[in-house]
Amino acid sequence: AWGFSGGQHVLKWGRCEAYAAVYPTVPDWVLNFSPLPSLSSPHRNLSAFPAAQSEHLQQKMSENGALPLRGKVLTVDTMNANVKKVDYAVRGPIVQRAVQIEKELKEVQGVKKPFEEVIKANIGDAHAMGQRPITFFRQVIALCTYPQLLDDNKFPEDAKNRARRILQSCGGNSIGAYTTSQGIDCVRHDVASYIQRRDGGIPSDPDNIYLTTGASDGIVTILKLLTAGEGRTRTGVMISIPQYPLYSASIAELGAVQINYYLNEEKCWSLDISELQRSLHAAREHCNPRVLCIINPGNPTGQVQSRQCIEDVIRFAAKENLFLMADEVYQDNVYAEGCEFHSFKKVLFEMGPEYSSKVELASFHSTSKCYMGECGFRGGYMEVINMDPEVKAQLTKLVSVRLCPPAPGQALMDLVVNSPQPGEPSYQTFMKERTAVLSALAEKAKLTEEILNTVPGISCNPVQGAMYSFPRITLPERAINEAKAKGQAPDMFYCMKLLEESGICLVPGSGFGQREGTYHFRMTILPPTDKLKIMLNKLKEFHQKFTQQYS
Amino acid sequence: AWGFSGGQHVLKWGRCEAYAAVYPTVPDWVLNFSPLPSLSSPHRNLSAFPAAQSEHLQQKMSENGALPLRGKVLTVDTMNANVKKVDYAVRGPIVQRAVQIEKELKEVQGVKKPFEEVIKANIGDAHAMGQRPITFFRQVIALCTYPQLLDDNKFPEDAKNRARRILQSCGGNSIGAYTTSQGIDCVRHDVASYIQRRDGGIPSDPDNIYLTTGASDGIVTILKLLTAGEGRTRTGVMISIPQYPLYSASIAELGAVQINYYLNEEKCWSLDISELQRSLHAAREHCNPRVLCIINPGNPTGQVQSRQCIEDVIRFAAKENLFLMADEVYQDNVYAEGCEFHSFKKVLFEMGPEYSSKVELASFHSTSKCYMGECGFRGGYMEVINMDPEVKAQLTKLVSVRLCPPAPGQALMDLVVNSPQPGEPSYQTFMKERTAVLSALAEKAKLTEEILNTVPGISCNPVQGAMYSFPRITLPERAINEAKAKGQAPDMFYCMKLLEESGICLVPGSGFGQREGTYHFRMTILPPTDKLKIMLNKLKEFHQKFTQQYS
Repeated sequence: AWGFSGGQHVLKWGRCEAYAAVYPTVPDWVLNFSPLPSLSSPHRNLSAFPAAQSEHLQQKMSENGALPLRGKVLTVDTMNANVKKVDYAVRGPIVQRAVQIEKELKEVQGVKKPFEEVIKANIGDAHAMGQRPITFFRQVIALCTYPQLLDDNKFPEDAKNRARRILQSCGGNSIGAYTTSQGIDCVRHDVASYIQRRDGGIPSDPDNIYLTTGASDGIVTILKLLTAGEGRTRTGVMISIPQYPLYSASIAELGAVQINYYLNEEKCWSLDISELQRSLHAAREHCNPRVLCIINPGNPTGQVQSRQCIEDVIRFAAKENLFLMADEVYQDNVYAEGCEFHSFKKVLFEMGPEYSSKVELASFHSTSKCYMGECGFRGGYMEVINMDPEVKAQLTKLVSVRLCPPAPGQALMDLVVNSPQPGEPSYQTFMKERTAVLSALAEKAKLTEEILNTVPGISCNPVQGAMYSFPRITLPERAINEAKAKGQAPDMFYCMKLLEESGICLVPGSGFGQREGTYHFRMTILPPTDKLKIMLNKLKEFHQKFTQQYS
Repeated sequence: AWGFSGGQHVLKWGRCEAYAAVYPTVPDWVLNFSPLPSLSSPHRNLSAFPAAQSEHLQQKMSENGALPLRGKVLTVDTMNANVKKVDYAVRGPIVQRAVQIEKELKEVQGVKKPFEEVIKANIGDAHAMGQRPITFFRQVIALCTYPQLLDDNKFPEDAKNRARRILQSCGGNSIGAYTTSQGIDCVRHDVASYIQRRDGGIPSDPDNIYLTTGASDGIVTILKLLTAGEGRTRTGVMISIPQYPLYSASIAELGAVQINYYLNEEKCWSLDISELQRSLHAAREHCNPRVLCIINPGNPTGQVQSRQCIEDVIRFAAKENLFLMADEVYQDNVYAEGCEFHSFKKVLFEMGPEYSSKVELASFHSTSKCYMGECGFRGGYMEVINMDPEVKAQLTKLVSVRLCPPAPGQALMDLVVNSPQPGEPSYQTFMKERTAVLSALAEKAKLTEEILNTVPGISCNPVQGAMYSFPRITLPERAINEAKAKGQAPDMFYCMKLLEESGICLVPGSGFGQREGTYHFRMTILPPTDKLKIMLNKLKEFHQKFTQQYS
């Protein structure tokens, strides 16, 4: 005998005498569905099942006193299929295991481990690794939050002025009010001024600035606008390999097509236009490539692209009709000599009107990285250049549904673009703190490259910028085979063992993408210098041991 | 002669001698596309155009020295089609006009207007309308933001203890660190404790709590998970009419199917199960109804559903296999005698295991409403009950891509669920402030109902809860016809005139949904009592004048 569950047209086999009374012989359409091993196993969603029949059946059963058996409405079979394709390695299984180990370490009676703490070098979270916030920024946000402090003479006048200016721009003079959906007016003006100063005077229109809930929010919003078409005309999005997996995750969630272009590991992760060409040409066979995403300075790779490269990319986007998305959240994180940050906006305009009046560009910045590390505030902005005015109206409409980005994050973004100036009371402390953070990062970038390059089987490109290293690891054949036998990516196998044996949490290169047959991991350079040295030396030991073990 | 633009297969008519050299006669496939009036007009996206042909063409043209003409990559024709269907009236055209008028009022030489200020009664933004934040909350957030204040004896000890507890739960003891994607641990524990206390001891598991970026974020995430299928099996989402347009906007954006069930205006916007039945039955003809959304207390309608109603809805959801989404952001905003907030979670569990072990429920709360009004912080949470564990893992994975909700908003949520207790230093001030806000709202709810009901042609149901009134307006036939001739919804026509003549900004009922042939507007009860009285009397005057004018 069997029963069923209404609505979702799910059939479950089970006891149901009432049914037998209604249908003494089992109809063909029931026999055509295979029986399930047991009542408790997940039921198959038979979405092809005609609605009418099951309603009829449900009615018959109700009339005969049988309650419909109930399966879950929302199961992995019946949920949004695109969401299932989403992966985000930065917070994936290895991090879940790391969190579990941290809990185990806290247990008094827990299993003894060969290490005392987990070093979380998986995520670009500076404060979590001990970096201090910028005093001025926190003073202003505190003043905005609790304006009674404006009467407190412990706070410097420049901080108070910033706070008053922000509050005056807020509804009811409160950062608890909703802001306009595009973001607080005076903040957008300050962002535009910052961009103009940064880019040698090239004008920036506040109306092209949208404040966002972290850069991630802006990036997803633009990708969403661009996602259209079906089958061969489905939007294709070009993204570097390796990439920051927000891109792959969002492309999967939106059901767009991911188009990989490989950065050149042999040339310090630089970008070859010929590789862009190859990738685009191949993609045109099966989708409609419309977007080119570039992360500069790079995540996870840390390269800072040359000005020539940026010009070439712009020229390529212009020629191939690609919407350019420039992820520039690490714009202050440039360490290597000879490297310099060139914003896509600036280079575009310096290339003259043939390009600057045509190429559609969205540039992204954030409060999470650089010298601020204010990830938890979820502050960010995007500047849209040459966006079709009707599309821009659609964008404004779209962001209005979520009302506005968090006001404290907007205020923080204001301070980043409108930081203390020479002569202001807070200037010296500000510069001291900023310099300390950036020079520590530069030192750690060099240290990381140097130490890792002393390890046979680890090869580390210079960390020119950003806050990560993405070294290549050579894995013994035996290790690769053992991983594959377990159904695990070889670099995941490596990283899991590293975690279990040393407490170091990194993210395997497979989470970011890499050339077939190569293996990497991404580590942050964020732990304090002493701890970083310890970590790098433990890594060195582990790698040598691992290599020996599997040779 | 004509040219084209590569990649997007866009054809534009224009000058291109080089082409004529290649193709002396215009090929058939070109002739089949209609010419565009001018070069500068928007070009048509001919997405059916075979890619190969245009690449060949592009190559030929390049060889002959012709640069491809460039149209925009991203236009309204080539953008995400679902996004175009999105509307959000709360920040729609009438608000844009209101903002414009505010600017005009500021201009010294501006056009003289019959009013001195715009009264923005369109959005549930309490602070913007003069409501003060809760002192204790802002103290704690300030302490979290600038922990040096922990040494300041101006701050009470209970505020400092809350701040320390939150900071200890943050990476590096900083609210600038990313938090776990599900939200700060201790906050989730506090939310669970709150729910348990609120619901008379029914347990709440912190692991079922997800902190969110406002309630909107959680609602969209759950709808996203639920959206699946195609054509007749496409997910249908039941939502009340009238509704808060986040629902219609998100359903449109996700490409799900909106299923309207009408609240009963004659019975104070109550919910009839027979109407749910009717709506569901009709919907099953063309989609796969899977979700039932209910807003209680209601937005825009202000009704507080009876306990019996809530039981009936749960029973209905159980019988019809519907995932229940309970939007409870106004849970403290209950004014009318005889009305009481009953959480869906509580009622579900009080109905016994037949229901409580089966019905899949997500409940939503926020820091934006109630007595807090902290909209700009974007704080919120959802509790998921009976979610399939595999789906829950997918949910956790999905929220991890956006890293985490804003930490200041999470901290604020903590204070809402863990507010000062009797005996604590801040308790009296806290209760005084909370009571003042809620009683002012109750007073204004009554005032609004009373005054509006004195106007012939306006009929206002009691504002039992939430913070809005949704009165029905009778419009003269002539006005309706004039509106329709302009292609405008009649209540939009009415609201626009109201705005231009009196500076009062409300949202037309068409933005929320209403029975065919009826007209309404939504106004907030948030302006300070004096201003609210003035506003209501101006409304009265306007309505009488409008009725006379169009009779």
